[in-house]
Amino acid sequence: MAMTDTPVNNGVNVDALVGAREALGSAPEAAQFQWRANCTWVNGTHSSSTVEGFFGLGEEQHHRTTFTFDADHPEIFASEDHGATPVEYVLVGLASCLTAGVAAVAQYRGIQLNSVSATLEGEMDVQGILGVDPDVRNGFSGIKVTYNIDADASPDDIKALVAQSQKRSAVYDIVTNPTNVTVEVA
Amino acid sequence: MAMTDTPVNNGVNVDALVGAREALGSAPEAAQFQWRANCTWVNGTHSSSTVEGFFGLGEEQHHRTTFTFDADHPEIFASEDHGATPVEYVLVGLASCLTAGVAAVAQYRGIQLNSVSATLEGEMDVQGILGVDPDVRNGFSGIKVTYNIDADASPDDIKALVAQSQKRSAVYDIVTNPTNVTVEVA
Repeated sequence: MAMTDTPVNNGVNVDALVGAREALGSAPEAAQFQWRANCTWVNGTHSSSTVEGFFGLGEEQHHRTTFTFDADHPEIFASEDHGATPVEYVLVGLASCLTAGVAAVAQYRGIQLNSVSATLEGEMDVQGILGVDPDVRNGFSGIKVTYNIDADASPDDIKALVAQSQKRSAVYDIVTNPTNVTVEVA
Repeated sequence: MAMTDTPVNNGVNVDALVGAREALGSAPEAAQFQWRANCTWVNGTHSSSTVEGFFGLGEEQHHRTTFTFDADHPEIFASEDHGATPVEYVLVGLASCLTAGVAAVAQYRGIQLNSVSATLEGEMDVQGILGVDPDVRNGFSGIKVTYNIDADASPDDIKALVAQSQKRSAVYDIVTNPTNVTVEVA
């Protein structure tokens, strides 16, 4: 970790993360997590999802509160726009994962962050989801993430922060690599 | 479309979707969409993302309002739990995409839905994100989606609804297949 005259404080408890890495390396069963969401259909393309419980460190865990998310399609798709679209939720997940990673890596490397913002753009040919052209995929053809970072570090060190965040990001991995999804009706 | 004595109403405007499919098939440039999110780092692993504008049908579009999403890591990761975790946002996106699809396909097939709910479980070995074991991926090892659907249809027809929703789902495609993500520092 770099030493600086003024203690760097990005609000990330690096000692705890390093401790967790050591603890979980010697107790790999505690590292098995299950993240969950529950979704209830409201009407049309509008649904309401909640996030509250998860499993990890060998036992049931709970968020401090239940987080609720309305999703819908926009009015130009003849829907009522009661919430962000499902694909926008994926962009939020990617943005927040990479940004948390930037803060954590910066703390670890002794780099003080002053401000971090990101713009995400996901390109999609909706001929896929509409079934117009079977050669067009349903999802994004690609996603571009652009960071603006003000930090007490050189441009190269800032680029290296972002690169390391990508390397350790759960959502970046989920989006860029295939994940098996099984869907069942109870 | 199936004919029934009582008009089926799941709140989905199928005529508009069929019209869009025909219109976009003859004007493929209008089908080029760009979905966006903006993310601002708050402190530690806490960030705030907004969703408002997007591009489609050849012009800038706007949601009816700006949707704002706080994301954070939970307290067991030495964070302050100011919002759902980034990977939970991906589960919300997947849940809401498949559920909107179930409603749309049911409407198209003349099946009245009474209730639809889904539970999503994403398994993750956090030795990946912590960098304990380079052979463990950062993302989910797999996701299980379980639907409970009450509809005026046979169990087989309900299973077929869900299968067709998977086939047309943008987020299911994003999660199960690789997507290119470029990350730049401005």
